[in-house]
Amino acid sequence: MDKIKIGILGYGNLGRGAELSIQQQPDMELVAIFTRRDPEDIEPTTKKVKVVHIDEVEAYQDKIDVMILCGGSAHDLPEQTPHFTKMFNTVDSFDTHANIPEHFAKVDQVAKEHKTVSIISVGWDPGLFSINRVMAEAILPKGETYTFWGKGLSQGHSDAVRRVEGVKDGVQYTIPSEKAIEAVRSGTNPHLTTSDKHERICYVVAKEGAYKSKIEADIKTMPNYFDEYETTVHFITEEELKKDHSAMPHGGFVIRSGQTGDGSNNQIYEFSLALDSNPEFTSSVLVAYARAAYRLHKDGMTGAQTIYDIAPRYISPLSNETLRKKYL
Amino acid sequence: MDKIKIGILGYGNLGRGAELSIQQQPDMELVAIFTRRDPEDIEPTTKKVKVVHIDEVEAYQDKIDVMILCGGSAHDLPEQTPHFTKMFNTVDSFDTHANIPEHFAKVDQVAKEHKTVSIISVGWDPGLFSINRVMAEAILPKGETYTFWGKGLSQGHSDAVRRVEGVKDGVQYTIPSEKAIEAVRSGTNPHLTTSDKHERICYVVAKEGAYKSKIEADIKTMPNYFDEYETTVHFITEEELKKDHSAMPHGGFVIRSGQTGDGSNNQIYEFSLALDSNPEFTSSVLVAYARAAYRLHKDGMTGAQTIYDIAPRYISPLSNETLRKKYL
Repeated sequence: MDKIKIGILGYGNLGRGAELSIQQQPDMELVAIFTRRDPEDIEPTTKKVKVVHIDEVEAYQDKIDVMILCGGSAHDLPEQTPHFTKMFNTVDSFDTHANIPEHFAKVDQVAKEHKTVSIISVGWDPGLFSINRVMAEAILPKGETYTFWGKGLSQGHSDAVRRVEGVKDGVQYTIPSEKAIEAVRSGTNPHLTTSDKHERICYVVAKEGAYKSKIEADIKTMPNYFDEYETTVHFITEEELKKDHSAMPHGGFVIRSGQTGDGSNNQIYEFSLALDSNPEFTSSVLVAYARAAYRLHKDGMTGAQTIYDIAPRYISPLSNETLRKKYL
Repeated sequence: MDKIKIGILGYGNLGRGAELSIQQQPDMELVAIFTRRDPEDIEPTTKKVKVVHIDEVEAYQDKIDVMILCGGSAHDLPEQTPHFTKMFNTVDSFDTHANIPEHFAKVDQVAKEHKTVSIISVGWDPGLFSINRVMAEAILPKGETYTFWGKGLSQGHSDAVRRVEGVKDGVQYTIPSEKAIEAVRSGTNPHLTTSDKHERICYVVAKEGAYKSKIEADIKTMPNYFDEYETTVHFITEEELKKDHSAMPHGGFVIRSGQTGDGSNNQIYEFSLALDSNPEFTSSVLVAYARAAYRLHKDGMTGAQTIYDIAPRYISPLSNETLRKKYL
């Protein structure tokens, strides 16, 4: 069987994750990693992989079935996805929720013009969480859906902690509230705000001579970021921060609490992720959906797609017969 | 908007659940319930619904978009699904795992000949659990998948308990082992047999004068059913059995514990259900997939399908634009 030929564009955490995920897939091969940097400066985790400057990407149009776009949503993907979808089938992890319709429309137009397929906003939220919100509500129309995030490192909140006077370095974890999760699982359909559902824990390295009590108060009372949340601040050393807090864990829960029959029967539908590495998991989802982009294109489909448009069998390497026989 | 016109064939627990689920759906209407019994003997939960004898079903060919087949897998569906797929788009909950390929082939042939769509083996296992097993493995190829069932009433095991000498009545619940679930969630990928993963709890009404200790021993040592499991037997009164054990709860967990990157990062993917009523939930899934059968047929598709072939958007009443804008 011919393997699906994959390219990776952008070599940060997501690109590195995609590189390793492709190795786990039985039906894929990585053709090259494309970068805006000097290719000489890039050392891929798997030694033999070709690293190519992005300016030479056009020469690969016939050599790559799907290009996995591993740039960021803020600055890279709004330009990159429409641009590279002219040449390749693409998948991206565009996650600026408010701009998804606009991004979709732009990419859809290009993809239809150039007869390619692009699956946008792939990952876990948007992505697997979105699928579960929609499926749970379709099955249980009467009820409430709750999304909890964490335990996870939040980049935005970590940045906010590091801007506080007297803070040398620090990280912030979002923790879903056990009490709130239990209330939802009990089927009582409680009304919960985002701050009811989450706690915040900060690990902070103070500058020499800084007042720790002032740092703690400044963090806890910071508007929008912390003031409405139950927040805990721990002071640690620089060594501890490096040793214990350089991983990028994340995850969360989507819970639909629905009522069926005469309304007295509670049905709890729950999907959750507990991830040691957020970027490695997100890129693993991108890689699986690259398979779908390849197959949809082979089926003659063109245009932009989202995870809502993709049947489960399109992301599996197994045949339909095997799926029915062994997994159903 | 024209509503999707639904028929229900078979009026047991599943049929009753479907009847109530359809009422929760904004875009469906129930045309009639079809039964092998005397329609006069059937009292639908919603008073106004028409009840029709199965012999008159042909007259409804143009009046029904999708027929939901609510018969049993052992005797009804192997005959009914191929037969009624000649006249209607159908969905069924065929769950005899070993016979799914044969059932699929039969239904597929009929559906293609008669230009209808049939989605078979819809529910939660087979069904939502199957989807999650396949998606989790596609995303995390390196790892192990675990399925736990329960807390749930097991019909087969309850029957076995009731056959024990001295037992007047009784039920059996399958309980997933908390210890085993925690081991799986920890990412250690333990080797677990079905009996490691589950406990069994029986609630038994003894006949007058029966030896309870003998009943308990007979249950606990019963080959295949109980001897390999941690089993607890509680003796209760007939009134307690009726009051506390006539619901049909079920549920379970599908957990994929995968490793990404260099193999050191654990990623836990988990899907679970906790159902007060197994038949009401199963029928709610059937009803949502009836929407998919209707739409696929409208798109010009024919043949048998499984839940692996159905993109999430096909089961949602919402438009693609709304899904992208509000749920992604």
